[in-house]
Amino acid sequence: MEEVKTSSRTRASLVAQSSADSRLRRRAQTVIPGGMYGHLNSVALPEDFPQFFKSGKGCRVRDVDDNEYIDFMCSWGPVVLGHAYPSVDEAADAEVRQGICLNGPGEIFVQLAELLVSEVSHAEWAMFGKNGTDATSLGLRIARTATTKGKVLIAKGAYHGIGTWSLPPGSAGVTDRDQADTIYFEYNDLESLDHAIAEAEGDVASVVVTPIRHEVHRDLELASPAFAVGVRKRCDEMGACLMIDDIRCGFRLDLAGSWESLGVRPDLTAYSKALANGHPLAALLGSEFLRDAATLVTATGSFWFSAPPMAAAVKTIETLKSENGIGRMEIAGQRFQAGLAEQADTHGLHVTISGPPQLPFMTFEGDKDEAKAFAWASECVRRGVYLHPFHNWFVSTAHDDQSIDDALSRTDDAFAAVRSRFGGT
Amino acid sequence: MEEVKTSSRTRASLVAQSSADSRLRRRAQTVIPGGMYGHLNSVALPEDFPQFFKSGKGCRVRDVDDNEYIDFMCSWGPVVLGHAYPSVDEAADAEVRQGICLNGPGEIFVQLAELLVSEVSHAEWAMFGKNGTDATSLGLRIARTATTKGKVLIAKGAYHGIGTWSLPPGSAGVTDRDQADTIYFEYNDLESLDHAIAEAEGDVASVVVTPIRHEVHRDLELASPAFAVGVRKRCDEMGACLMIDDIRCGFRLDLAGSWESLGVRPDLTAYSKALANGHPLAALLGSEFLRDAATLVTATGSFWFSAPPMAAAVKTIETLKSENGIGRMEIAGQRFQAGLAEQADTHGLHVTISGPPQLPFMTFEGDKDEAKAFAWASECVRRGVYLHPFHNWFVSTAHDDQSIDDALSRTDDAFAAVRSRFGGT
Repeated sequence: MEEVKTSSRTRASLVAQSSADSRLRRRAQTVIPGGMYGHLNSVALPEDFPQFFKSGKGCRVRDVDDNEYIDFMCSWGPVVLGHAYPSVDEAADAEVRQGICLNGPGEIFVQLAELLVSEVSHAEWAMFGKNGTDATSLGLRIARTATTKGKVLIAKGAYHGIGTWSLPPGSAGVTDRDQADTIYFEYNDLESLDHAIAEAEGDVASVVVTPIRHEVHRDLELASPAFAVGVRKRCDEMGACLMIDDIRCGFRLDLAGSWESLGVRPDLTAYSKALANGHPLAALLGSEFLRDAATLVTATGSFWFSAPPMAAAVKTIETLKSENGIGRMEIAGQRFQAGLAEQADTHGLHVTISGPPQLPFMTFEGDKDEAKAFAWASECVRRGVYLHPFHNWFVSTAHDDQSIDDALSRTDDAFAAVRSRFGGT
Repeated sequence: MEEVKTSSRTRASLVAQSSADSRLRRRAQTVIPGGMYGHLNSVALPEDFPQFFKSGKGCRVRDVDDNEYIDFMCSWGPVVLGHAYPSVDEAADAEVRQGICLNGPGEIFVQLAELLVSEVSHAEWAMFGKNGTDATSLGLRIARTATTKGKVLIAKGAYHGIGTWSLPPGSAGVTDRDQADTIYFEYNDLESLDHAIAEAEGDVASVVVTPIRHEVHRDLELASPAFAVGVRKRCDEMGACLMIDDIRCGFRLDLAGSWESLGVRPDLTAYSKALANGHPLAALLGSEFLRDAATLVTATGSFWFSAPPMAAAVKTIETLKSENGIGRMEIAGQRFQAGLAEQADTHGLHVTISGPPQLPFMTFEGDKDEAKAFAWASECVRRGVYLHPFHNWFVSTAHDDQSIDDALSRTDDAFAAVRSRFGGT
């Protein structure tokens, strides 16, 4: 069995070698490449972050060593009503008891499609998958079919899943041919988009954009109204499909669509993550003119028609509506953002708070190598507040005033520790 | 609301316009492209086949009009222990109650990887996804990373999911660039494979094969031992990775690997479907020399680390082992195959029974346009036996002697009806 590298570890973490988390990490080294992979891999996080979790309830999660955290990652988005939300899980379980996977869909398949079509302003039809990547990749094939064009334009640095067309250039195992149809532009920059359009020489099937700029390692940036309107206009002019990749923001900003407040409606929207409060589901919603193209693409997966996640989705959306979930997340996020801003100021630390309140984020100004961000996140996690040093956070409807204030009482100490270590800025 | 086309329908089905299935089909026409899509779309099936299902228990399923069927499709493979298998669903539910989706995996992630590595002969590590496509596409990227080569060789007509590299040439929404790295050969034909290798000019990253030939619209064909050994030998000689796509056959033929009895071990195996008895999960298993490459590829999805399907998988595999599930499915399938052969003979109908017994199939000889296959499947479904006219069937461990005999008592009448309509052959 390979030993976990410990040379740079602190005394505290050496003591922690006997923790359940450390024992699992060692076992995982044997049977999992690198011991872990993907976005939940803690190897890129400060060493105080646990890798393995045991449970979650509401806005709190518990790691395998029984440490409890107020959770501001919500499993990187899926958990929108809080962990283990009873009515959602019960709706799913009722379907599981009828058979999780049958020879065709159940009535809930139609009900969920009807609900999404009624809620999302541009949508006239729905299709379902399991991963966000299923939805974005399916959307691209539908756009190509409808337009008889081939290229896709995406923002540099944007994440649209692990389809080879959207992985960063030079990603392991991706060939030049895989990405020959992908052209990049700068988010919020119409001039750059125009260059990309010119480069495509009339062959643009789709422009795919996230509703806000939410790359890792930088402040979140809202779409400028001019950009959103400009993207729509250019798609209309060249006969290309506008797809909004709403996988990260969907069901947190606006049930009608994340650019609805900007007056911009896409032709396709890709949803996943928060759609079913953690149950595995993705959806692609489309406008009427794409319906025929959607019937022509091969779209299927072994578990794509399973009823339980669909029942969970119906209950999640109904709950978000009936309990003003989006408004409540906004208020909770604002409270957290305002509290952090005030604390940083008090400690003489210059920070930038960004993002819509439902997906808050914070960076330290002039933070070379993210040293302060890492130190602060580390101090937070030690104090029972789980958030990320370089990826946006998430708020759920389970974050009430009390849990936000509880979190803030701990982040204050984290700021003090950063101030003490780095001095003021 | 669009009306379902009824011109070619029988009087019986016109009466059925008021069925729950028909009502759901009409609703679905409004909000789902084509009313349904994917492999569970009944539009390609005889009109007697229901589209919407309500429940399943053991080897029986029930449609939304409460018609019960002895089920020989097992949801196209996932259901290997029978529908709604209590201990599997309870294991999953225990995890759901702890939080379906957390900020990291739970201990079960390591346990399942350990179990798979211990069961599957060549495997030294495991990675997980949600769709079969996740596993095959990830495997290809790992093979490319390890070999620094680009091309993939697959059998003509084989299905390896909906990655654009593996969809049939000319599929809607797929560009020539998407498939520029894919080269085809004929299954069970080493000469054809050699031509494909020559065409790749030394740039083969992987040969991907299903353990048996299981295309639609034709008899199933086992891999010839010479073919399996020959594929392995060629991969070794050219330094390419042999990936077995065991998504359809996995956990039905041999827990150690579907080519184990042929003495051939792959470098990568893609599993999904039966892995967790219907719970959404896929796995990619790899040999030791691919471990480093596996750490380099981007491999992630919002729900890829959810514990419930992993708990279901552990329980499914343990049950298959402790109850000799594969042996029992083989016996049940043999009983069904033998019974069908005898019945066809009695009725003077010439059929070909093919497939390993766990994945049986039957075609009528000289069956132009599959008219007899459709008629027979239709007569079966009317009598409460659910199977497919042109796709292989599946047996589960819930198919005991009694249910097989019950099914055979109905298929006998279906043969009689076909004989009466088409005459003997």
